Amino acid sequence: MSKNRLIYLPLGGAGEIGMNAYVYGYGLPGKERLILVDMGVTFPDMDTTPGVDLIMPDLAWLEARLDRLEAIFITHAHGDHIGAVGHLWPKLKKQIYARRFTATIGRLKFEEYGLPTEAITTVEARPHVVEAGPFKVQFIPVSHSIPESAALVIDTPAGRIFHSGDFKLDATPVVGEGWDDARIRQIVAERPVKALMCDSTNVFSLHAGRSESSIKGALADLIRGAGGMVVATTFASNVARLKTLAEAGIAAERSVCLLGRAMKRMVAAAETSGVLSDFPRTITPEEALEIPRRNLMLIVTGSQGERRAASAQLSRGKYLGLEMKEGDMFLFSSKTIPGNERDVGRIMNAYSEMGVDVQDEGGGKYHVSGHANRPDLEHVHRLLLPDMVIPMHGEHRHLREHARIATEAGIASEVASNGMMIDLSGDTPEVAEYIETGRTYLDGSVLIGSMDGVVRDRIRMALNGYVLVTVILDDTDVALGDPWVEVSGLPKAGKAGRLLADTLEADLAEFLDGAGVKLLRDDGKLEEALRRVVRQVSMEEIGKKPEVTVVISRLVAE
Amino acid sequence: MSKNRLIYLPLGGAGEIGMNAYVYGYGLPGKERLILVDMGVTFPDMDTTPGVDLIMPDLAWLEARLDRLEAIFITHAHGDHIGAVGHLWPKLKKQIYARRFTATIGRLKFEEYGLPTEAITTVEARPHVVEAGPFKVQFIPVSHSIPESAALVIDTPAGRIFHSGDFKLDATPVVGEGWDDARIRQIVAERPVKALMCDSTNVFSLHAGRSESSIKGALADLIRGAGGMVVATTFASNVARLKTLAEAGIAAERSVCLLGRAMKRMVAAAETSGVLSDFPRTITPEEALEIPRRNLMLIVTGSQGERRAASAQLSRGKYLGLEMKEGDMFLFSSKTIPGNERDVGRIMNAYSEMGVDVQDEGGGKYHVSGHANRPDLEHVHRLLLPDMVIPMHGEHRHLREHARIATEAGIASEVASNGMMIDLSGDTPEVAEYIETGRTYLDGSVLIGSMDGVVRDRIRMALNGYVLVTVILDDTDVALGDPWVEVSGLPKAGKAGRLLADTLEADLAEFLDGAGVKLLRDDGKLEEALRRVVRQVSMEEIGKKPEVTVVISRLVAE
Repeated sequence: MSKNRLIYLPLGGAGEIGMNAYVYGYGLPGKERLILVDMGVTFPDMDTTPGVDLIMPDLAWLEARLDRLEAIFITHAHGDHIGAVGHLWPKLKKQIYARRFTATIGRLKFEEYGLPTEAITTVEARPHVVEAGPFKVQFIPVSHSIPESAALVIDTPAGRIFHSGDFKLDATPVVGEGWDDARIRQIVAERPVKALMCDSTNVFSLHAGRSESSIKGALADLIRGAGGMVVATTFASNVARLKTLAEAGIAAERSVCLLGRAMKRMVAAAETSGVLSDFPRTITPEEALEIPRRNLMLIVTGSQGERRAASAQLSRGKYLGLEMKEGDMFLFSSKTIPGNERDVGRIMNAYSEMGVDVQDEGGGKYHVSGHANRPDLEHVHRLLLPDMVIPMHGEHRHLREHARIATEAGIASEVASNGMMIDLSGDTPEVAEYIETGRTYLDGSVLIGSMDGVVRDRIRMALNGYVLVTVILDDTDVALGDPWVEVSGLPKAGKAGRLLADTLEADLAEFLDGAGVKLLRDDGKLEEALRRVVRQVSMEEIGKKPEVTVVISRLVAE
Repeated sequence: MSKNRLIYLPLGGAGEIGMNAYVYGYGLPGKERLILVDMGVTFPDMDTTPGVDLIMPDLAWLEARLDRLEAIFITHAHGDHIGAVGHLWPKLKKQIYARRFTATIGRLKFEEYGLPTEAITTVEARPHVVEAGPFKVQFIPVSHSIPESAALVIDTPAGRIFHSGDFKLDATPVVGEGWDDARIRQIVAERPVKALMCDSTNVFSLHAGRSESSIKGALADLIRGAGGMVVATTFASNVARLKTLAEAGIAAERSVCLLGRAMKRMVAAAETSGVLSDFPRTITPEEALEIPRRNLMLIVTGSQGERRAASAQLSRGKYLGLEMKEGDMFLFSSKTIPGNERDVGRIMNAYSEMGVDVQDEGGGKYHVSGHANRPDLEHVHRLLLPDMVIPMHGEHRHLREHARIATEAGIASEVASNGMMIDLSGDTPEVAEYIETGRTYLDGSVLIGSMDGVVRDRIRMALNGYVLVTVILDDTDVALGDPWVEVSGLPKAGKAGRLLADTLEADLAEFLDGAGVKLLRDDGKLEEALRRVVRQVSMEEIGKKPEVTVVISRLVAE
């Protein structure tokens, strides 16, 4: 006889840092009622996803079970947790629940894509409860690098789950509620925690985390000591940091100007949702032009070197009339996310060429992380005393290390990566099933699957170049004129200095001359044969085997 | 009346870390006799140089002045100093001078490319002097992360230059000669140093550098404590580290096997050139298969996550019959060069999935840098007491910072990036001229210029996808059949679910139907018009504007 069970299924975010999407289910096997926590994105890169605009989890498993999906919960407004709502919600069309700031950001995205904003419900923090089928969900305020981040307490008939979301232990986070051990203890006292799903981002950081407020003094000193204009960048959503920077600017008798759409949107959302009431007065870029550099501070987007953000624009010259000059200071109050080092380095060097003093995060002096470090994770394990810890929000090595420290502390744990359905019903986590998961790409205006071959073809063209051959045959299978060759992304001249296209055309013409009727009549075989000629000749001439398209046109007698 | 002058001209390596190539000249302006120091490469990346095999300095300036070039000096055998000799030497054909180990590596490259190995002369260290026109050059042993790295003392009638090469202050470097203050003091006592050209790589590292021998104990402890097989990677050329690792393996009762061509080649070259005499006995991969994991240690190539190196091969499964298993350890005794984080992370996660314990450099516990840190640089400035310091071997921000600390210490300095010719004749460095410099790409078997547009076309195809249109017109300018469209690297279906190629063909056919004779007769205008149609329709259908090639074939009446 089958029994109700409680399951956990990451569709994104487990085995990677990005595109979070976690499913919980409760019910008879195969008939569980479901909820989805978070709908995030990952950012593409040239190495693996050239030309792609956004990467999102493939929710096919959920789409095939829409009748069982009760609701969607969003823990906080970072892109890797909320970024996909505008693109993937139309496939699910279930009510989204989030706290006020997160809901505000979500509704902005919905407006951008013409979706019904009433599909997003604003939820108060615990003790408020959202009921969704067999699930009772509460939002627990936690500190993070964005306002109103939440952990979720998910009550089910099979037990209480604590889904940590992204968090750090910060009692003095400058903006919003601090981390509060007492709040957590009360939750545990009320009902013991069966399973803790837990942020693993910083499991390799061995020291205890530091508070957002701990860098206030150093930032103020740095800005006070600067001579020319000061330009600072950080993550646009780190409203607390923006406030610290702006206040430091004001204290140093500088007018403060925010540059970059994302940043202004975040501050506005924080103000309208009530989490930010005392942000210093800012000026417009036009007003900034009238102010002596010594009395001006810009806070700009683009801490990761994004090419279109304000920091990159300023590194290339004037932006909205504003310009960096020798003696100015540019401050990265941010860490560089692995993979972005080259882009950030490019901007630093551009500023260096201008004579601008570039200050990085100074080994933690001007930036603190938003995630719990290893000692903090161990502290949370001890606070929550769960039967099991399932690490999430990490690459495989983070999940594995997190599971290791839980196991060493005597708590059952399992490394569950995307697609592993875990049965949480018993005393220890059990792998119930492996689900096919994947990635969906937003490419221009189209959603494509990561396995569709589109991106693979792009990478091949970028690595190998491209040759196009057109051949026209008459109704007696005789070539009309010579084959025509166009090359793209390949050296123009081959080894003897002759044009590659000319060599290819000559060799293809010779090949066609000698080809038998049987081959000339078979489009498929002829294409393949011509492709082979192109690849061989190119290899000899330029040492590369390009991608080749052959177009055979046959003229029909009239 | 014009006077002899002493000039310095970086053609590569100043304003970047990579492809070092520095020119010195002495004589009447425009008639200076020249020497070249180093001929290095830079490694390509997918972001900026997809499909490129190697990046090298453009030596056009030197090629135009071959009659004035006396000789080439190579400071050490790292790729960014010697890597281009096989490709660029045929353009210069001047004698190369290097110390024994470096010359051995250089000759291996020459053999690979069928070049005359006698063009490389082995030089003893100071007091031996190489005379090259007005230059008298001595090789000064310095410690670095490769055997026999050398600084150059370059004597000219206008003064003595100290060209640091890559170096660190390491009195106990495990293999080869240590750094020796007395040796430097003697050089200064013999003749004062006019200009110091100085490595800037680690100018942002604020603590004093640590010796290669300082990590011996930690490495030995780590390897002794490991349960299963131990696999360690480091830079293939760091022979000292290979020795430390191998000795730690032997001490832990493990047989040691080197995997990876580059690594075996480096050890062999170190042995034949006499810098390494006591490397522990190693076993072959075949022998390794017979040895219990607990008694086996592999030292492998691929510390930067290179896809074809041994570390990556092992992360994908069996390699030469050897395989990693749960409980094994993989050690990165190396730092990740900025830009390689994703590739290294991919390997770490692959090992994590196998249950292998991955150990990174542990914040310096298992790796030390080969370059002088800021306090070390300041020490060298004080030792050499030069009239001027010209920072080299660094991105612009490194050069600028290095110039700043020199200036603050009262030494004249100038940030000289690639193409800036500096006149060193006076008391302070003066910019004499700006030379056009650039990069040469090895692409397959061909050398192309970075501005040839080849790589730009590849990047565009990778970002935007590619559409090919063929149209056949008869001798009355009437289209024979519909246009034929092939798409590459683009979503198959557009917004209404219809195939993009079908939509494009239909819209192009419609356009041709309505086109006037004047347009149909003009190949150039017709191509442009059809290209525009493709880009517009694609934008509507898939939100992207692809690269487009249009081939118009005209049939001539027979």
